[in-house]
Amino acid sequence: MLRIAICQLNYTVGDIEGNTQKIINYIHAATEKKCDIAVFSELAVCGYPPYDLLFNSAFVNDCISAIEKIATSCKNIIAIVGGIDKNPGEGKPLFNTAFVLHRGQILHRYYKALLPTYDVFDEARYFEPFYEPLIFEYHQKKIAVTICEDLWTKSLDQHPDIGKPLYHYDIVARLLSQHPDVLVNIAASPFSYTQIKHRYSILNETQKQLNCTLIYVNQIGSHADLIFDGGSVYIESNGSYTCKFFDEDLEIIDLEKPSFNLRPENTYWYIYEALKLGIKDFFQKNGFKKAVLGLSGGIDSALVAILAADAIGHENVHALLMPSQYSSEHSISDSIELCKRNQISYNIISIKSVFNEVEKTLLPYFQSKNPDVTEENIQSRIRALFLMAYSNKHGHVLLNTSNKSEMATGYGTLYGDMCGALSVLGDVYKTQIYQLATYVNSEKERIPINIIKKPPSAELRPNQKDSDTLPDYSILDAILFQLIEQQQTIDSIVSSGYDKQTVEKIYQWLYQFDYKRFQAPPVLRISPKAFGLGRRIPLVKKITS
Amino acid sequence: MLRIAICQLNYTVGDIEGNTQKIINYIHAATEKKCDIAVFSELAVCGYPPYDLLFNSAFVNDCISAIEKIATSCKNIIAIVGGIDKNPGEGKPLFNTAFVLHRGQILHRYYKALLPTYDVFDEARYFEPFYEPLIFEYHQKKIAVTICEDLWTKSLDQHPDIGKPLYHYDIVARLLSQHPDVLVNIAASPFSYTQIKHRYSILNETQKQLNCTLIYVNQIGSHADLIFDGGSVYIESNGSYTCKFFDEDLEIIDLEKPSFNLRPENTYWYIYEALKLGIKDFFQKNGFKKAVLGLSGGIDSALVAILAADAIGHENVHALLMPSQYSSEHSISDSIELCKRNQISYNIISIKSVFNEVEKTLLPYFQSKNPDVTEENIQSRIRALFLMAYSNKHGHVLLNTSNKSEMATGYGTLYGDMCGALSVLGDVYKTQIYQLATYVNSEKERIPINIIKKPPSAELRPNQKDSDTLPDYSILDAILFQLIEQQQTIDSIVSSGYDKQTVEKIYQWLYQFDYKRFQAPPVLRISPKAFGLGRRIPLVKKITS
Repeated sequence: MLRIAICQLNYTVGDIEGNTQKIINYIHAATEKKCDIAVFSELAVCGYPPYDLLFNSAFVNDCISAIEKIATSCKNIIAIVGGIDKNPGEGKPLFNTAFVLHRGQILHRYYKALLPTYDVFDEARYFEPFYEPLIFEYHQKKIAVTICEDLWTKSLDQHPDIGKPLYHYDIVARLLSQHPDVLVNIAASPFSYTQIKHRYSILNETQKQLNCTLIYVNQIGSHADLIFDGGSVYIESNGSYTCKFFDEDLEIIDLEKPSFNLRPENTYWYIYEALKLGIKDFFQKNGFKKAVLGLSGGIDSALVAILAADAIGHENVHALLMPSQYSSEHSISDSIELCKRNQISYNIISIKSVFNEVEKTLLPYFQSKNPDVTEENIQSRIRALFLMAYSNKHGHVLLNTSNKSEMATGYGTLYGDMCGALSVLGDVYKTQIYQLATYVNSEKERIPINIIKKPPSAELRPNQKDSDTLPDYSILDAILFQLIEQQQTIDSIVSSGYDKQTVEKIYQWLYQFDYKRFQAPPVLRISPKAFGLGRRIPLVKKITS
Repeated sequence: MLRIAICQLNYTVGDIEGNTQKIINYIHAATEKKCDIAVFSELAVCGYPPYDLLFNSAFVNDCISAIEKIATSCKNIIAIVGGIDKNPGEGKPLFNTAFVLHRGQILHRYYKALLPTYDVFDEARYFEPFYEPLIFEYHQKKIAVTICEDLWTKSLDQHPDIGKPLYHYDIVARLLSQHPDVLVNIAASPFSYTQIKHRYSILNETQKQLNCTLIYVNQIGSHADLIFDGGSVYIESNGSYTCKFFDEDLEIIDLEKPSFNLRPENTYWYIYEALKLGIKDFFQKNGFKKAVLGLSGGIDSALVAILAADAIGHENVHALLMPSQYSSEHSISDSIELCKRNQISYNIISIKSVFNEVEKTLLPYFQSKNPDVTEENIQSRIRALFLMAYSNKHGHVLLNTSNKSEMATGYGTLYGDMCGALSVLGDVYKTQIYQLATYVNSEKERIPINIIKKPPSAELRPNQKDSDTLPDYSILDAILFQLIEQQQTIDSIVSSGYDKQTVEKIYQWLYQFDYKRFQAPPVLRISPKAFGLGRRIPLVKKITS
């Protein structure tokens, strides 16, 4: 009888010492629980993704030493641990490696074959692929080891209209003839709200194909943009058992006495928990404690405040309410109500006098030009100045409250409301924010209903509404989704029933404001295509297609 | 007798229509000059690098149609043009392609074999490699076609201590037995001050190895960060002829009557011209006309002002001089002198009254804490607010004046002096800025000598000097260079003779302030390792190596 420990842990990128100690602690725990094998996730010793830290040779050597240290902690147990190995031959300098460790020895090394190099992934930048499966025997069981993307053999390329296989190599097909009893996949697979379904469908399919027990171990934790949800899973023919999402977990699997469970189904539960973990880890791993944010009276900042309170504690969140001459009464009263209901401290600091002083100072240089977006931006930037001053003076970290719809259309002020150390909602469309607000309010009205019901407005000039400038959010977001997430062409979106002029205008905005997004904070990624490293658009360009 | 036209052109990324028309115009010009072959650079039809525009299927189709259109413009001439082709098989969706065009037909397609995927390059994200050389015959000459990196067969990987070949495939070795008369290499090779030497040494070596005529065609032009210098070259056994740097060029080569020339040698000439082109193209390709910048009285902003004046015309550059209570007399008088000598318009706008109003407004919320970096940042951010207001009101584009030494050490204010649409000097160390200033002043004193001679200071508190916080720039820059450009470890730098504590402190700074650089403007790249896409460091991390 084989007992396997799924060790689903939260690693800090670069913290080889801390990660190694954590792995060793879990090996000890699994040994105590009489497990035969303990499985850890991809690149566990350095955390995923280490990016260009991999070009530091001291870092590489430390990662390799860490594996040797972990091996010595394996007494009567095998550990399968993700790390890196040097490539002695031609090609990229490293292998993305699964080490099989036992009694101080490295029994086996498996090198990853399929190296994701798309969206947020750049593995071909660092690693050389290696096309040789690993199966080893232990307690009369044949155990195959693979790494994450290796099972994504049926991935299609990113052109929706071409859609042919992305890889030449099919490790599952090669394993078929060897009849493994257990297929282990160690992974670092980031969350997106479409990824969960996609991931388990691939894992289920692979399990069926090989007709074996499949054990998939993912990491959890967030690193400024990517959020890893965990959701490690054990699948056999009669059912599956899924570990916790968004939390560390140690699950012991008795291969002969499997137990099964169900996964949560509500998409907004996943998104909310992902964002919460994103904030929590950003603070914890950076050694930050307190957050500050501006509350406008609108739904975006209200949601960020509540997410932050849930992530790091309401006592660690402070809000600034910064009215101008254009602010509505309710923008302040609603924000106060929000703070009270959620026990968030706040100050009210008017920007009027500073705004007047700025206007007075700059007027001689404005050459009697009419008020325009300049004055709107000045207001937004004074608020940023206040927030950053508060942040600097008190050591609070500024949370950004921009949403994906406005980031996509350039409807925000650079160095103004686009400031912040972390963009919490930059990958969440406005229509999704309403859904999240409803989700938050499902048990009690934490967000005052007036905040949800009022028409969105930046309140930077009299009676301004978002709808003066932008199409209705339901249309805007649907078109943006097809342009960004689905990479559809203008023609195909129009042919699906949208107004041509509207689609073209949105397309124009999307490509016009890359320069603003370039200087935006890192965005917590919850969709299959977020702004950031996963979407690389030239800054200087002319778009004719 | 074979006449070959080297068409070294400036393309705009994404402007398929404009690029195509330009290529056709040059084919006509080359035809008129009785050339047999006209050679254009890599990915000429879409400009390099197109990044994720390649995932837009309309864009891909337009690129392919462009090649067909260009083919029809080739009457009695062959054109070798860089473009893209679809990969009908497994793997990445596209091939990076050199098309050989003649009389309306695509005679040959050569697909790039070596796809750079390091530093700023991500070609494995888009392209499938293809390992088959192309040699075709024309006028009794055997002509081999390759694309850029294909000749970089002897590149080493990025670990200085490993240093083994990066590629498995050696196209030059394969071409040897086929004895080509001419080797064409179409390229898109960005400038760095080390790249020039490296590039011609590889090309010379290849020419010697194959003992044939080598024709290398690079693009020129800049795209926000990458600057392409041109420098296309014709090499044969007796010498070489190099085209213009940093400008378009059409050179006709008579294979039987070669002429030779020499390349410029002064490194600072290259760097200055590169930065000038970087600014010029950023404005021209974006449709911008005028620039604004803040003049502090220091050397960095003085140099940016002069570069901008040379790039887009002094009449299009406007400076703001924004003294505070901590500004020295000379900071204003020196800046005025600089503006006068270089015919740059300026305004003097004191930040004092706004600073006082901000202090008065925020004081109640500062809980009687002592003045600290908060007040310094407020000053820097008020200046940014003024500059951006000027930019918004008058349509001037803000140029950033931060240098590489301060960006590396986090010695700058986010949303303050780190603002701007383009970082002109973000890849230039302070010590290099002094060299550039000397270069600028070599004929006449355009930069008042007092600006060069004064000790660097941010002037954000009484008697502040950079040297209060930072090591001497000659030491700082030398250590940063080893950390960034050479990717050396702390140990190896210390063993080369630097103080351990100093090296560790600089290392600490370098990795501590990635979050600031993440929100910095795009940086014109002139070194082998610039901040930006070429250097990907995790934002949330713990560094133990």
